[in-house]
Amino acid sequence: MDTSDLLKQVAFIKEIDKLKYIQRRTKLFNSDRHENDAEHSWHLAMMAIVLSEHSNQPIDVLKVVKMVLIHDLVEIDAGDTFIYDTAKNHTNTDEERLAAQRIFGLLPEAQAQEFISIWEEFEEGQTDEAKFAKTMDRFEPLLQNTSNNGGTWAEFDVEYQTVYNKKKAIANGSASIWSYADRLLNESVEKGILRKASQ
Amino acid sequence: MDTSDLLKQVAFIKEIDKLKYIQRRTKLFNSDRHENDAEHSWHLAMMAIVLSEHSNQPIDVLKVVKMVLIHDLVEIDAGDTFIYDTAKNHTNTDEERLAAQRIFGLLPEAQAQEFISIWEEFEEGQTDEAKFAKTMDRFEPLLQNTSNNGGTWAEFDVEYQTVYNKKKAIANGSASIWSYADRLLNESVEKGILRKASQ
Repeated sequence: MDTSDLLKQVAFIKEIDKLKYIQRRTKLFNSDRHENDAEHSWHLAMMAIVLSEHSNQPIDVLKVVKMVLIHDLVEIDAGDTFIYDTAKNHTNTDEERLAAQRIFGLLPEAQAQEFISIWEEFEEGQTDEAKFAKTMDRFEPLLQNTSNNGGTWAEFDVEYQTVYNKKKAIANGSASIWSYADRLLNESVEKGILRKASQ
Repeated sequence: MDTSDLLKQVAFIKEIDKLKYIQRRTKLFNSDRHENDAEHSWHLAMMAIVLSEHSNQPIDVLKVVKMVLIHDLVEIDAGDTFIYDTAKNHTNTDEERLAAQRIFGLLPEAQAQEFISIWEEFEEGQTDEAKFAKTMDRFEPLLQNTSNNGGTWAEFDVEYQTVYNKKKAIANGSASIWSYADRLLNESVEKGILRKASQ
């Protein structure tokens, strides 16, 4: 065992504690309390494990779990980007790349490269694991919003088609979860907790 | 895909949101803010992934990650038990067994059995995966307390030998992490943030 590796790993473990302070727009289920990124990441990891059978393709579950556990760490430096924010590009900004270099760079070199690579794979969303990880990331806030009378959809007056356009990526990872999610969106419109522009 | 399975899994995913409300005695790093069980579970999963090379024995990392992600779910019903609480037995109380049956029982039958089995394996602490998972569970608050001027050791006046007796289980999962942790405990005594009874 290389003691200097352990010291680097401990420095990383301490640094990522800051994820617990990053507040998301979404709120806990049936709640008025905002969720933070660490709670969100834990929940996605649980979902990935519990729902893996619904993936369109066979997946390496450990890799998906790693992706969702680390996917928001760059927000320690770059801050949370709200999915319906039209002024800020969501994925892989220069700021986020620098954050990944700094934060994962606390780890021993080979491990840093592995994590950066997994984070980039998630961001690019092309592999089966990345698609399923993104399915989890889209599905959790959808469930939260439906349990919170529309949640962020209502709070920020986001229209059905905008939500649909973001959420349909769920189908890339799981047709069956998308079938269920699509139904929830329609039910949300019927209940009046998701506004549909008149046609 | 069985839709009824997905509905059961969604019910479980919503129920476990309650883990985010369960406050631990320990506090975040360099902080006065208490940690909750979901944040704690996320952090242990990250630690298990980052530190797996230090395990005494080869381990199935995904199994360890599952253990630490779910190990505190029973506290949704049974509440948090403080490790230095002398009035309450820590592991596997009847209350916790009932909680495991109820909470994991929300899942489809085969999955419920798998999770209950993993939880029991963690609690029993006999397999290589359970030993390493427990190493993570002991190591995180030790790091937190050393970063918080003694943290819960100081707050509840826990003496060095009591801490040592709880923490030495770290060695069961990783000799090298224990070597480092043991040094941190001695340094904590020297710094005066962990009281050692006069000999």
